Amino acid sequence: MEHPYVPRDLQLPGYVPVSLSQSTILTVFGLSSLFVVSLVWLLSGRWRNLSNLDRLLMCWWAFTGLTHMILEGYFAFSPEFYKEKTGFYLAEVWKEYSKGDSRYAGRDTAIVTVEGITSVLEGPPSLLAVYAIATGKGYSYILQFAISLGQLYGTLVYFIAAYLDGDNFAASPFYYYAYYILANSFWILIPSLIAVRCWKKISMAVQSQSQKKNKVR
Amino acid sequence: MEHPYVPRDLQLPGYVPVSLSQSTILTVFGLSSLFVVSLVWLLSGRWRNLSNLDRLLMCWWAFTGLTHMILEGYFAFSPEFYKEKTGFYLAEVWKEYSKGDSRYAGRDTAIVTVEGITSVLEGPPSLLAVYAIATGKGYSYILQFAISLGQLYGTLVYFIAAYLDGDNFAASPFYYYAYYILANSFWILIPSLIAVRCWKKISMAVQSQSQKKNKVR
Repeated sequence: MEHPYVPRDLQLPGYVPVSLSQSTILTVFGLSSLFVVSLVWLLSGRWRNLSNLDRLLMCWWAFTGLTHMILEGYFAFSPEFYKEKTGFYLAEVWKEYSKGDSRYAGRDTAIVTVEGITSVLEGPPSLLAVYAIATGKGYSYILQFAISLGQLYGTLVYFIAAYLDGDNFAASPFYYYAYYILANSFWILIPSLIAVRCWKKISMAVQSQSQKKNKVR
Repeated sequence: MEHPYVPRDLQLPGYVPVSLSQSTILTVFGLSSLFVVSLVWLLSGRWRNLSNLDRLLMCWWAFTGLTHMILEGYFAFSPEFYKEKTGFYLAEVWKEYSKGDSRYAGRDTAIVTVEGITSVLEGPPSLLAVYAIATGKGYSYILQFAISLGQLYGTLVYFIAAYLDGDNFAASPFYYYAYYILANSFWILIPSLIAVRCWKKISMAVQSQSQKKNKVR
């Protein structure tokens, strides 16, 4: 079966075409994400005095953590997803996304490496961040900072490796901008904002503690 | 000219063999590093009350920062180093190191990506860390934490990508263990120790500040 991906000479023996429509795939992802975000938003509102910003961050961490663990976790450990015949949703997602970046179907080393690290080392810690914010742990900022930095490093490897390999992995400009650029840009923008905020909070806390120590002397 | 690297079918047209001896290459690196470390150790001793641990950390950051910027920076931006005829030291280093990991001579995408990020985004900040420790900046811990995490992420990509690609890039078991495993293990061990220390320091500072705030209420 011929595949719809670029470059055209990519070899995918046993490829089975995507069976769900693009709108179905995106709607399922959108509604599941909306469900998770709504649930965390509502539950966190009944929790003791959390700021709206903290509640928003909890929604982000729940959403991104589950995305890392379920979507990206499936990809990282399913080398033959493109042969999947059953219309299994997670395989459909990656068959569809490969139109924007065929390195997924082609099992590019840099992609599998980054997705493996993301799903295993950033997924579960993201859910821990939800808990850490809710309970006001002292490690809350440094944990959020660490995951955000990991996400930024991963996205950077993702884009630089594509550039070095010729940046010719999208089936059309639409898929290039919608999947490859737009979808990934959120994992540049949001981790950057969170990292900067945590950096400031942490620097201030350390500064104020060292001043306190100096006074005690 | 035939190259000494594995896999044997790696194509390196225009390859010029390494001209310095292994011991010369290692001695120059060792002595330069020793010079930098000694200089930072001595100068930091004349600085106001820095602990010996802080002075040791300054030595590490100066050493690793200059390694990232000079050695790895040269590699990242010199795609044709293996054709270098003049015996230029930095090219000799990478010709020699490629015996432990031919992905360097072969310009593997994951390697170039990680080395590019390391040299540009971790090199200069490492030197900033020397300054931040010396002057007791509030951002000192979070900066050291950020660079260490970047180093760990990079080394992880380095090893995982090699594993996924078949782990057959060393000219002999000696080069495999001495260059590929041993040399890189320092960038697992030391960043891990620093990251854990910074995590603890930061968590405690944030915790104590939030308790102070609660008391004020």
